[in-house]
Amino acid sequence: MTVATMPRKTSVLPRTGRDARLAARAGEFKGQTAGVAPGYVQGNLAILPASLAGDFLRFCQLNPKPCPLLAASAPGDHRLPTLADDLDIRTDLPRYRVFARGEVIDEPADVRRHWRDDLVAFVLGCSFSFEEALIEGGIELRHITCNATVPMYRTSIATVPAGPFHGPMVVSMRPMKPADAIRAIQITTRFPAVHGAPVHIGKPEQIGIADLGKPDWGDPIPVHADEIPVFWACGVTPQSVVATVKPEFCITHYPGSMLVTDRRNSEFAIL
Amino acid sequence: MTVATMPRKTSVLPRTGRDARLAARAGEFKGQTAGVAPGYVQGNLAILPASLAGDFLRFCQLNPKPCPLLAASAPGDHRLPTLADDLDIRTDLPRYRVFARGEVIDEPADVRRHWRDDLVAFVLGCSFSFEEALIEGGIELRHITCNATVPMYRTSIATVPAGPFHGPMVVSMRPMKPADAIRAIQITTRFPAVHGAPVHIGKPEQIGIADLGKPDWGDPIPVHADEIPVFWACGVTPQSVVATVKPEFCITHYPGSMLVTDRRNSEFAIL
Repeated sequence: MTVATMPRKTSVLPRTGRDARLAARAGEFKGQTAGVAPGYVQGNLAILPASLAGDFLRFCQLNPKPCPLLAASAPGDHRLPTLADDLDIRTDLPRYRVFARGEVIDEPADVRRHWRDDLVAFVLGCSFSFEEALIEGGIELRHITCNATVPMYRTSIATVPAGPFHGPMVVSMRPMKPADAIRAIQITTRFPAVHGAPVHIGKPEQIGIADLGKPDWGDPIPVHADEIPVFWACGVTPQSVVATVKPEFCITHYPGSMLVTDRRNSEFAIL
Repeated sequence: MTVATMPRKTSVLPRTGRDARLAARAGEFKGQTAGVAPGYVQGNLAILPASLAGDFLRFCQLNPKPCPLLAASAPGDHRLPTLADDLDIRTDLPRYRVFARGEVIDEPADVRRHWRDDLVAFVLGCSFSFEEALIEGGIELRHITCNATVPMYRTSIATVPAGPFHGPMVVSMRPMKPADAIRAIQITTRFPAVHGAPVHIGKPEQIGIADLGKPDWGDPIPVHADEIPVFWACGVTPQSVVATVKPEFCITHYPGSMLVTDRRNSEFAIL
């Protein structure tokens, strides 16, 4: 029995990383991965030609907070066995975006027809992992309360350049009461592999954000008078940086449709 | 050779906890303990009659952030062997304050003549321990830069009462740039036995502080426009609470003249 013919429940969200990948591989799941497979690590995807891969790898290593690299494939290899034994990066995401020279040329559910022997896949940690820990810690996440996408902002904080890759750090913002902000710093410090502790707190103008009500990505959300904005380095940073470079060829996940792995968020807690 | 006749250097600050205690015991050191015996834990002292000791112990256990109890003696016992083998709490501080019904009745360098068989000595952690870690972490402490006493404020945060002991939490305030504030939260989280992480950050009015420029204890210090105030629970809280109770009899350290122990600050780091 092949994976594609395995009986599947499509009426409920996949509950494990493997369920999510098999459903995506079978073309039965093409949606957003928020809320999918609770407890499992999800990742941002960037696939680049080998000619750019060395610089991009170095960029990630120089900028671990916005670019927490979870895995990188060998050139042409569509497997990432440290994230899941059976993973095929060409088929296992619900949906992809394919770029040529910076322009979107396709948004398929499967990139096998775009695959090349020189492609290197990078999977980067995402904030879902630490958000789960914050929610378990009893901390309200306003964008979830508002059923919105977390607001993200281009900042005046420069990333450390590597080859052609350079540009501003993008941050996500979550407003919190001060005691929750302190607790959130403690909780996210435990997860350095998935953005880790905040990069800034309070005073948005210090990092070049003129108006919290006008995010560059995501949705504006209310910040109450008794709250302070808390800013985390965001996985949109590498996407924004790659977009600036306009590589000859590039594949990413479709926004919100991430890779779901077999690793557990709890494995990434350092204490 | 008795301790009192041991040759001592009095021209330099004592460099170990034992040096500091022996110099205090010999009457050769009656000053402030800031900067004394770097690396060694210093503690606030409260000595109360056994009739109040049970409630005070419970008060400390209910309020560990402002009242981090390092040791409590048996009634009438002037030793605290978990803090130092040879410690005599009656002689080993540079200077004491003795209170009767809330009034200062003596400020001696030795309280042997005030000692009673029903007295219980409590030693509470102090911010010197975490300040050392912050300084090692490269974080500026403004009150030290200004050669001032850290500003302290009575807040609207209530302590959890125990018997007659109740009252507001007192906090100390250190202004920091946001990135330093985040780092300071991480560093002080490692030291739960000596106040631990901050209790508040930003927005002083939320905890009942109307004017940062008018501390209730210590000195006002500048808070720059690019800084946020960071507030830690303060060891003045139990002193303030005990003063409110006006116990029949009580002994504390003289302000700034703390007990210096044989324990190292680094022993109190939980990670």
